[in-house]
Amino acid sequence: MYRPQIKVLDCTIRDGGLINNHYFTDEFVRAVYQAISKSGIDYIEFGYRCSKELFPIKEYGAWKYCDDEKILEIIDGIESNVKISIMVDAHRVKEQQFAPVDKSPVDMIRVATYVKDIDKAIELVKKTKDLGYETTVNIMAVSKEGEPELVEALKQLAICKPDVVYIVDSFGALYCEQIEHLVKLYKQYLPGIEIGVHCHNNQQLAFSNTIEGIIHNANYLDASLYGIGRGPGNCPLELLMGFLKNPKFNLSPILKVIEDYMLPMQKEIEWGYLIPYMITGILNEHPRAAIAMRQTDKKDKYAEFYEEILETLD
Amino acid sequence: MYRPQIKVLDCTIRDGGLINNHYFTDEFVRAVYQAISKSGIDYIEFGYRCSKELFPIKEYGAWKYCDDEKILEIIDGIESNVKISIMVDAHRVKEQQFAPVDKSPVDMIRVATYVKDIDKAIELVKKTKDLGYETTVNIMAVSKEGEPELVEALKQLAICKPDVVYIVDSFGALYCEQIEHLVKLYKQYLPGIEIGVHCHNNQQLAFSNTIEGIIHNANYLDASLYGIGRGPGNCPLELLMGFLKNPKFNLSPILKVIEDYMLPMQKEIEWGYLIPYMITGILNEHPRAAIAMRQTDKKDKYAEFYEEILETLD
Repeated sequence: MYRPQIKVLDCTIRDGGLINNHYFTDEFVRAVYQAISKSGIDYIEFGYRCSKELFPIKEYGAWKYCDDEKILEIIDGIESNVKISIMVDAHRVKEQQFAPVDKSPVDMIRVATYVKDIDKAIELVKKTKDLGYETTVNIMAVSKEGEPELVEALKQLAICKPDVVYIVDSFGALYCEQIEHLVKLYKQYLPGIEIGVHCHNNQQLAFSNTIEGIIHNANYLDASLYGIGRGPGNCPLELLMGFLKNPKFNLSPILKVIEDYMLPMQKEIEWGYLIPYMITGILNEHPRAAIAMRQTDKKDKYAEFYEEILETLD
Repeated sequence: MYRPQIKVLDCTIRDGGLINNHYFTDEFVRAVYQAISKSGIDYIEFGYRCSKELFPIKEYGAWKYCDDEKILEIIDGIESNVKISIMVDAHRVKEQQFAPVDKSPVDMIRVATYVKDIDKAIELVKKTKDLGYETTVNIMAVSKEGEPELVEALKQLAICKPDVVYIVDSFGALYCEQIEHLVKLYKQYLPGIEIGVHCHNNQQLAFSNTIEGIIHNANYLDASLYGIGRGPGNCPLELLMGFLKNPKFNLSPILKVIEDYMLPMQKEIEWGYLIPYMITGILNEHPRAAIAMRQTDKKDKYAEFYEEILETLD
C-alpha cells in the first residue's frame, strides 16, 4: 500500500517505557533514534510529559517527563529528518510546561484521553496548538465506550480541530470489522481531520488491524520495534514497513537495531504474545489483572486465571 | 461469529511434527487428543501417511506414518466425538495403504498438493473417497501460483468433488485482501464444495487471515495449540476459539494443555514470531532459508540475512 499521506510513528520508547517505568539508557534511546532516522519513519515518540509533582522523579526514568533539554542531549549530532512527538495524559495534568514550538525540539504533542476527560483534552489541544505544535487526541480504551458518548466527543473534537484523532485499542479487543466501523465513524464526524490507529497485540491483531485502518483511510499509524509495549505490545514496526511500499522507507536499519538491542532487552523485560493478555483481550478487559499475575509464581496458570477472571465478570 | 457450519481442525501434531520429524511422546499426543476432545473442536490431525519406503522409519517418529494401529493405541479409552484426519502428500506417494473407512479410526484424508501435482491429488481423492473417507485437497503455496493455472486446477477439482478445498498460505505471505480474493475465486469455481483456510504466521497474520476467510464464508479452519507449526507456526487455536462464539466450544481444556505441555515444549523446539520468517514472509519466499539460518551461529543476524536474501532475488 503506497499512499504518500501515510505517516508512521514509532512509539518504542514511549509505549515501551510503560513496562520499565521509562528507564532506558541514553545509549539505547540514541540507537533507536538513529535507526528510526535512517529508516525514513516520520515520527518518533520519546515518552510522556508528566508532572514531577504527581510523579516524583525518584520513581521514574527521564522519559516520563521528556524535558526538552533531555531530548536535545539525545538527538545531538545525529542527522535526522524525523519529527519528535511526546504524549500528555489529559487526566493527569498539573503544572506541565511547554515552550513555544520554535524553542523546543518537539514537533507534535499527542493528548491521550478517555472519552469522559475529553474537555480536559480539548483544553490541552488549545494550549499546545497556540504554542505552534502539531496536535493529536488519542482516545483510549475505545472498545469500552458507548457509541453515543464517543460520537459526542468526536463532535467536540471536530470544533477544536487537532491535526489527528486516534483510535486506541488499549485492550487489544477489537476485530477488523470493528476497526472498519470506528474509522468510518471517526471520518464521518471529523471532516478535514486525519485519523490514526494505535493497536495492541493481545490477540495478534495489532498489525492486521493497522492494515484494516489503512484500507479505510486512516493515515497515522503507530508501531514499535519488535512490537515492544505494555503487556503484549503494539504493532511491530518491521511488519508495517514490509506492508507499506513507500520507497522512502528502509528496513535494514530497523532489523539491525532489533538484533542489537531489542532481542537482548526482551530477556530483561517482558512483552509479546502471552496467554494472560490474550485472555484479557478476548474479554475486552484492561490488562491490569494479567500484568499483576505475571509478577506472581502463578504466572503460567492460564486455565485458573481464565476461570477467575470469568467469575469477576459474572 | 457463530455459524454452525464452521468446522475447526487442530493440526498441532501434524504441522508441529514438521519441526521435530514427527517425534512426539505418546503421553503428549494423548494429552492433546484429550484436550481437543473436551474442547469441542471438530477434527484433529495426527500427521502424515507417508511411505516407509520413501521415508525410512529410522529417521522419523510415528506421526510421519499414522498407522491405524498407532492411532487406535493413542485414542484408546478417551471419550471423544472428535473426528480424526491424516494428511497425504500428493507428490510423495508410493505404496500407502488405506483400509476402508469402517475398518479405520480415520475419518478424513487431506491431500496436500501443489497446483502442478493436481492430477496426482485427484487420483488420491478418488481412491480414498471410494473407501468412504471424507476428503479434502489442500493447495499449498498458493501465494506463488499464477491465477490461470490455479483456476484450471480448481475446475478439475470441481469435477472430482472432494468435500473441502483449502487455501494454504504456506509462506505466510498473504494479506487480508488477497485472502478475500482467493476465497471468492475458490467459491466461484467450486460450487457445492466447502472452502478451508490454513494460514502461516510469518507476519502475525495467521489469525486475522483466518477471520478474513470466515467473513467470506470459508467454513473449514485450521489452527494449532499456541500456534505450533513449521517456522513461525499456524493460527493459534486459542485465539480462534475466542473469536468463534459457538457455544459448543470450551476454552479451558485448551489453556490447560498449553500451560502443561506447549510452554515446556517451546523451550525444546522453536516456533513463533521470529524475524527471519517474517523476512521470507514479506518476500513471499519458502521459509527454507530462514529454517537453515536458525541452525547456525548467525541465527540472529537479521539485517545480514535480509540483505543476502534480497541479493538472491535480484
